[in-house]
Amino acid sequence: MANSAEILEHVLSRTPQSPHPITYQWLLPNVKGFDNFLSMWQSKSQPGQDAYPTPPPSPGTDNGPALNTSSSDPNAMPFASSGAEAMNASRDAQAPIHELSIFTAATESFTQKNTNCSIAESLQRFEPIMSKAKEMDLKVRAYISVALGCPYEGPDVDPHKVAELAVSLLEMGADEISVADTTGMGTAPKTLELLKTLNAAGVTKDDLALHFHDTYGQALVNSVVALEHGIRTFDAAVGGLGGCPFSPGATGNVATEDLVHCFHSLGAKTGVDLEGLAEVGEWISKELGRGNDSRAGKATLSRLRKARA
Amino acid sequence: MANSAEILEHVLSRTPQSPHPITYQWLLPNVKGFDNFLSMWQSKSQPGQDAYPTPPPSPGTDNGPALNTSSSDPNAMPFASSGAEAMNASRDAQAPIHELSIFTAATESFTQKNTNCSIAESLQRFEPIMSKAKEMDLKVRAYISVALGCPYEGPDVDPHKVAELAVSLLEMGADEISVADTTGMGTAPKTLELLKTLNAAGVTKDDLALHFHDTYGQALVNSVVALEHGIRTFDAAVGGLGGCPFSPGATGNVATEDLVHCFHSLGAKTGVDLEGLAEVGEWISKELGRGNDSRAGKATLSRLRKARA
Repeated sequence: MANSAEILEHVLSRTPQSPHPITYQWLLPNVKGFDNFLSMWQSKSQPGQDAYPTPPPSPGTDNGPALNTSSSDPNAMPFASSGAEAMNASRDAQAPIHELSIFTAATESFTQKNTNCSIAESLQRFEPIMSKAKEMDLKVRAYISVALGCPYEGPDVDPHKVAELAVSLLEMGADEISVADTTGMGTAPKTLELLKTLNAAGVTKDDLALHFHDTYGQALVNSVVALEHGIRTFDAAVGGLGGCPFSPGATGNVATEDLVHCFHSLGAKTGVDLEGLAEVGEWISKELGRGNDSRAGKATLSRLRKARA
Repeated sequence: MANSAEILEHVLSRTPQSPHPITYQWLLPNVKGFDNFLSMWQSKSQPGQDAYPTPPPSPGTDNGPALNTSSSDPNAMPFASSGAEAMNASRDAQAPIHELSIFTAATESFTQKNTNCSIAESLQRFEPIMSKAKEMDLKVRAYISVALGCPYEGPDVDPHKVAELAVSLLEMGADEISVADTTGMGTAPKTLELLKTLNAAGVTKDDLALHFHDTYGQALVNSVVALEHGIRTFDAAVGGLGGCPFSPGATGNVATEDLVHCFHSLGAKTGVDLEGLAEVGEWISKELGRGNDSRAGKATLSRLRKARA
């Protein structure tokens, strides 16, 4: 499946079964994308299903993967992972949850290359999406790309620019900001400085998700810094899938297996079965005809195979 | 070159030229290995060269890569890297430095498989090596393998056993202990616990080198823990070369490029040129017909190529 429309069609026609609800996030570049999303939704919904996306549960009961919700267990944490299962089995309905994602970037150069507009224009484009989403009671996640390094402007991205954008997006109605180290240029001190700057601007840890790429091998070090700073939502992809066509040489997202292994070692409770996750990472890497980029995934499978032999 | 004897012969016959002295470490399984080392040395030394290994400089002036020496700069740190250049150009002579390495392990199972003897027997084997080395004024580095996880006994290796071994080796005359996470099972909390246990047993940070494998992707996280604990000597290999035939599925040492990139980001001064290092990692990976396992190395080269284009 090459694009979101095909994936959406598949999800709507043959909704994957899961013991836990699955949250799908749909990246929408502009309001036209939203309209396409809605029209496909309305045309493909199966008889008996609501023609509209399942409204998310009220904030008081929601524990979905992409939402920062409170928990009585300080070590419990949700993961936002492409196509990941929701971690919380206590949700009443097993129906999938749909959320919208919008994206801008921390530098003008990247925004021009990636979305063919200025940062200010990208914010203007979000306004009608945000309004429609609110009407439909859909959650909106906003990404700020190249927050810790830009392929065009270099590693020193102004953290105040990121904070200013995050504040604008939250004021506009975004439910969560995913701060993305698209190029993997982020380092531990830069990550900490950015988190402190965001906090000083009134963007709390509960507003934030962190999104690291392991291009320079620093994703876990940066993630531990963010975890220690109180961040509890992290983006990742099984097998280290992904990349960015506008960030040359960029590898995929940090592998979910590596992040889960690391956080488990620190005492975090993710609810994720690492062995099952490793099998999924290996399976999808083979399906896509690419190498499995998760070290913890490969090592876990190697250990399992040895134990079975 | 398949084995140490061939490499030693090459180094002796055609000593690589370098602007800085190179330190070579020779792994000796037993006193027979030492005798072989010496006889090759004596037969192959070039006319005009001393028939014995270059004696190491006195501790007061030595800043070689594998030696923990004091420095006026708290961020300055030596690296112990296979075949790495010595970082300090202030050494008077440019002659290579030779050191001996011996190895035991923290578990009986691994010691049996790896060296075909018990831990106690391995210590006995070291005694004549240590005596001869002292007679010849050669430094000895002692490795303790599987210190944070054993392929046969699992991830929970007793840190007190590691500390006991380290103390025995230091008392026997070892100049440095390299604590090795051979399997990559080490985690941040386990690394910290081990370092605290070693410290409580009287093994100071200046006695220690840390040696991580990135099999589960945790090498940099663990290295940062050790760095924060005061450790200043780390083993690594360009391109992530290496592995262990007795630790199934083990990947190579943590890539020097990844470690240097990480430590530079934290403000450490390694004296290592990361771009040059990345070129070396790419070159040797190609020579060996294997993939370059350094993320920072590959990303650095990708950035350089882009800048040159």
